[in-house]
Amino acid sequence: MPAHTLPDFRAIEAAAARIAPHAQRTPVMRSRSLDALAGAELHFKCEHLQRGGAFKFRGACNAVWSLDGADAARGVVTHSSGNHGAALALAARTRGIPAHVVVPEGAVRSKLAAIEAWGATLHRCAPTIAAREEAAEAVRQATGATLVHPYTDPRVIAGQGTAAMELLREVDGLEVLVTPIGGGGLIGGSALAARALAPGIAVFAAEPSGAADAYESLRRGVRVTDIVPDTVCDGLRGTIGAINLALLQACSVRVLTIDDADTLAAQRLIAARLKQVVEPSSAIALAAVFAQRDAFAGRRVGIILSGGNVD
Amino acid sequence: MPAHTLPDFRAIEAAAARIAPHAQRTPVMRSRSLDALAGAELHFKCEHLQRGGAFKFRGACNAVWSLDGADAARGVVTHSSGNHGAALALAARTRGIPAHVVVPEGAVRSKLAAIEAWGATLHRCAPTIAAREEAAEAVRQATGATLVHPYTDPRVIAGQGTAAMELLREVDGLEVLVTPIGGGGLIGGSALAARALAPGIAVFAAEPSGAADAYESLRRGVRVTDIVPDTVCDGLRGTIGAINLALLQACSVRVLTIDDADTLAAQRLIAARLKQVVEPSSAIALAAVFAQRDAFAGRRVGIILSGGNVD
Repeated sequence: MPAHTLPDFRAIEAAAARIAPHAQRTPVMRSRSLDALAGAELHFKCEHLQRGGAFKFRGACNAVWSLDGADAARGVVTHSSGNHGAALALAARTRGIPAHVVVPEGAVRSKLAAIEAWGATLHRCAPTIAAREEAAEAVRQATGATLVHPYTDPRVIAGQGTAAMELLREVDGLEVLVTPIGGGGLIGGSALAARALAPGIAVFAAEPSGAADAYESLRRGVRVTDIVPDTVCDGLRGTIGAINLALLQACSVRVLTIDDADTLAAQRLIAARLKQVVEPSSAIALAAVFAQRDAFAGRRVGIILSGGNVD
Repeated sequence: MPAHTLPDFRAIEAAAARIAPHAQRTPVMRSRSLDALAGAELHFKCEHLQRGGAFKFRGACNAVWSLDGADAARGVVTHSSGNHGAALALAARTRGIPAHVVVPEGAVRSKLAAIEAWGATLHRCAPTIAAREEAAEAVRQATGATLVHPYTDPRVIAGQGTAAMELLREVDGLEVLVTPIGGGGLIGGSALAARALAPGIAVFAAEPSGAADAYESLRRGVRVTDIVPDTVCDGLRGTIGAINLALLQACSVRVLTIDDADTLAAQRLIAARLKQVVEPSSAIALAAVFAQRDAFAGRRVGIILSGGNVD
C-alpha cells in the first residue's frame, strides 16, 4: 500500500496477517464491579498487554514489515513522545533493521528507556511538532531511513485497526466502541474496522479537555492545530492529522472531552477493579463511559485500553 | 470430607468440580523481559484476577459448597485479616447464606470494604490470634454458623490447591513451583497438587523475613508460634497451622525468606513489566526468584500471583 493512500478495511486485514507472527493477540477483560458501577456491559481490550506495552506496536510492526528489502535495510525513523518510538524500535528489532527515534525534551522516562533498550538510536529535540518533524527529516536525509509517522502513516493506521478488529470479532453484539484519541491513528483504524464489522455501532473517541484539538476540528469542520496541550495524558498531546480527521468525519466518530481528574479516577478504578496498570492516556476511555452515561448506559461497550507505560 | 481429615489430591479434584460454576479459571501470563531479568522461564498464574481479587475465593467457595443444606442455612464464620474474609463473604453470597467475619484492628481498608460490600457482618477484635479465635467462637456459638478457618480447614486447603492444579495442567514441564506462605493454605494445596501432577518438581514457599514462622518451624521440626510478624505483606502475617506444617514436611516444601525491600521491588517490576497490580504478599514469590537465583535460573518456573488487593 503506497504511503499516500487512505487505508480501508482490507488494509487492516492485510496488517493483521502481516503482524500475526510478532504481535500479541491481547485478551479481553471483564469486571462485574465495573459493569455495576457503569450500568453497562464493558469489554476491555487489553493493549497495555501488547508487546512494548501499547497498541502502537501493531502499527509500527505493520509499517516495518510492509517495506521492501532495500528500503528496510536503510532502517526507519520517527518522532514520538514515547510509545510509538518504543514500538518502532521494537518492530525494527523484529526485522533486524536500524531505527532512529526523535524524542522531545520532557518525554516520559520509562518510554525513553524502552526505546534505548530495544536498540534504537535516540535523537533529542525541542518539544514542538515543528522541531520534531525537522529533526526526523534531517535523520531521514542522512540515513535514507523510511519515515514512519506515528499516526498519519496509512500503514500505521491500518495496523492500529487490528486491535478493534480482534475485539469486534471476539465479542458479539458490541453497540458502542470507545478509544482514546491523540493524533488519531488508533481511532482512525478502529473506526474503519467498526464500520466494516459492525456498521450500526456508535464510535467514540475520548480526548483530554486540555488537548481538545480533535473535538474542535470536528466542530469547526477544519483542522485546528493551534491548541497547546495541557493534560496528564502524555500519549494524547499530538495534534490530529489531516488524514485522521478525514477518517473521523467519514466514519461518524464523536469526540468526547474528558477532564484529567476524571481520567485519573478511572485509572485508579482500573487498578482497583481490573488489577491492571494502564497509563492515563488509556484510562480516559473508561472515564468517558462514566462522564457521558447517556451514551453508554445499558449498552454493550468495547473499550480499548491502549497502553500501560507509566513511570 | 470431614473437617479433621488431611486433604489429598482427590479432594483438590473434587474442589475443582465444586467451585467450577463460581470461580474464574485465571489466565497464565508471560513476560519476555522478566524472563530475561530472571534468566528463567516464568509462568505467572494470575490469582489476583480471581473473583474477590485473590486465590482465597477458591478455598472459601469449596468450603461453602461442601456444607449440607441445614449447616449452610446457619451460615459461615471466620476470622481473617482481609482476603479470606472477603472471599468467604463472596462465597457465601454465591450460595445465599449468611457470613460473619471477625477482623482484627489494623486490617487493610480496601479488604474490609469488600467484605461489607458483599453483605457479610463484620465483627472487630484485637489484632492477636487469640482474640480472633475467641471472637469467632463466640459468633459460632451464638449463630450456629460453621467455622471456616482461613488456612487449617482441609476444605480450604483443597480449594486453594486448584490454582496450582490448573497451572500444572496448562503449562507442560514446570520444574519449579513457588507460592507465598502465610498460614500455609495456598502452599499446602499447591504442594499436594504438585506432588500428584509433577512428582519431580521443586516446590518453594516464599515467606517474609519478618514473619518467618514457617521457615523456623521447618528448621526446628516443631511449630513455632511466638514470632511477632513485622512485614509489609499483610496477607502473610498468619502463623503456620499444624496441618499446614505437616503438609510442608510431607511434600518436601522448602521455605525461602525474603526481605520486604526485595518484595516491594518485585511488586514494582510486576507493575512495570506485566502491567499487573498485585499486593506485596503476591510479589514476594517473584522476589524469591531473584533473591535465590540458584534455585530458579535456567528452569521453567510456575509462580502463583496470589492477590491484588491494595489500598
